Amino acid sequence: MAGNFADRLAEAIRQKDSRVCVGLDPRLDLLPELPATSATSRVEAFCCAICTAVAPYTVAVKPQSAYFEALAPDGLACMWRVIRFARELGLLVIVDAKRNDIGSTAEAYVQACLGLHAGSAEPLADAVTVNAYLGADGVRPFVEAAATYGTGAFVLVKTSNPSSGDLQDLRLDSGLTVYQHMADLVAQWGRGLVGQSGYSSVGAVVGATYPEQLRELRQRVPTVPFLVPGYGHQGATADDVAGGFDVAGLGAIVNSSRGIIYAYRERELDPGEAAAQAAEEMRLALNAALLH
Amino acid sequence: MAGNFADRLAEAIRQKDSRVCVGLDPRLDLLPELPATSATSRVEAFCCAICTAVAPYTVAVKPQSAYFEALAPDGLACMWRVIRFARELGLLVIVDAKRNDIGSTAEAYVQACLGLHAGSAEPLADAVTVNAYLGADGVRPFVEAAATYGTGAFVLVKTSNPSSGDLQDLRLDSGLTVYQHMADLVAQWGRGLVGQSGYSSVGAVVGATYPEQLRELRQRVPTVPFLVPGYGHQGATADDVAGGFDVAGLGAIVNSSRGIIYAYRERELDPGEAAAQAAEEMRLALNAALLH
Repeated sequence: MAGNFADRLAEAIRQKDSRVCVGLDPRLDLLPELPATSATSRVEAFCCAICTAVAPYTVAVKPQSAYFEALAPDGLACMWRVIRFARELGLLVIVDAKRNDIGSTAEAYVQACLGLHAGSAEPLADAVTVNAYLGADGVRPFVEAAATYGTGAFVLVKTSNPSSGDLQDLRLDSGLTVYQHMADLVAQWGRGLVGQSGYSSVGAVVGATYPEQLRELRQRVPTVPFLVPGYGHQGATADDVAGGFDVAGLGAIVNSSRGIIYAYRERELDPGEAAAQAAEEMRLALNAALLH
Repeated sequence: MAGNFADRLAEAIRQKDSRVCVGLDPRLDLLPELPATSATSRVEAFCCAICTAVAPYTVAVKPQSAYFEALAPDGLACMWRVIRFARELGLLVIVDAKRNDIGSTAEAYVQACLGLHAGSAEPLADAVTVNAYLGADGVRPFVEAAATYGTGAFVLVKTSNPSSGDLQDLRLDSGLTVYQHMADLVAQWGRGLVGQSGYSSVGAVVGATYPEQLRELRQRVPTVPFLVPGYGHQGATADDVAGGFDVAGLGAIVNSSRGIIYAYRERELDPGEAAAQAAEEMRLALNAALLH
């Protein structure tokens, strides 16, 4: 995997003129009916069809590890087949795993989540999401992997869910909130990995459902790229996420999962056609909001 | 899985007069040489031998998901075979996965990490570790599972690693530290699940390497049982962890991974014999420290 993750991300955004990331959240109860077959076969066929359909309008896909793990025992093998397929389509792949551990355990997660399996020299995924409640120890192995392999990591800073404030909005005696402090740590951890785009391979997850905080953080940590979940089904609009971008339209990608992959449930189209239409609508809506 | 997890834990502690949890961290580079076979076969044989050997001295085992996931593609299937084996030996099983997500994704992690696979009605594991950076949303599905299935959850509060203070020791404007605030949230989330033992099925991870904080938290949240990592290889002693117990010798279990499962590397014994000896020494050391 050549070069710097943040540079590859910026290049993909420019080439496709897209800031769209499609979340692959394969829920069996929402998948289309298929002839009798195994759960993992259904999931693999569905996810690959979605990837093919959205690839022209999308810079990245974000497989959610939880849904694949729940398809035990062979769910993760299915996820890696989908990831290989997506990479061959030229999509960047961000594994949404929110992992966190220390020392040699964190190194095992680097192997597991970036697809450095059984001594393979090249990672299969481009980036992974990380939870930094454990501090620098839990993030360092992902930063080292970024330097070695050209991968990326997105650290949870201000998440999109209603209760994210339980911890993240608490005010410290320094005057900062917990999420502001975390954003500063993320900028510091990624200092050595800033590429030609001006962004680091160590990014942050900042929810689209908190537009003020997104805008504020864009100013606060100008070298940290954002992965922005919460668009669409969770309620955020293109105007809500506009503040996450810099003046050149870089610095963030916006994720939608359900609103794209299950668009077929609300449109008179097959799943791939509906997903392609929804992804293209989202691409155009984001780009229009950036011009305001 | 009958009854309340905290009550089953307290009963196991009393029956075996043990507060020992053995961490299953199968690192290929530390496993004994075996005739040529697959990595997962080596790991499974090793972990099952360790479980059999330590079962008389140990209340629980804690498989570390990362090491199994790194054995892709069939590492997690191997972990579940080890878990079934451990349960048949009468050991409680705590899956160390530190998962964190929201909504239906968190529910997928409940299925994945407690072993509620493919519509099975009974979980295969007793408890799981959880990271609560996302607030209540990320913990609620595990609390609901505890009510429904009699499982448990241990939420990261004050972890054992050197950089745990990066976030956890920050002082809030309320005067509390982040980890104290988190401990209070854990007590609150588990309020409805306090069993006859006086402890809740929603516990906390508090590192043995911070003995003062462990003692302080034991007073602060008297209904929250502790999973205490950091003993042995990470440097903590029996005296360091004594403050994590109540006057009846309940309220905590202490985990050692490397110091037990790889004891054979420093003793003239086979892996099982060495692990049994190390587990029994740890059991006695903890019990002696409680009498001081």
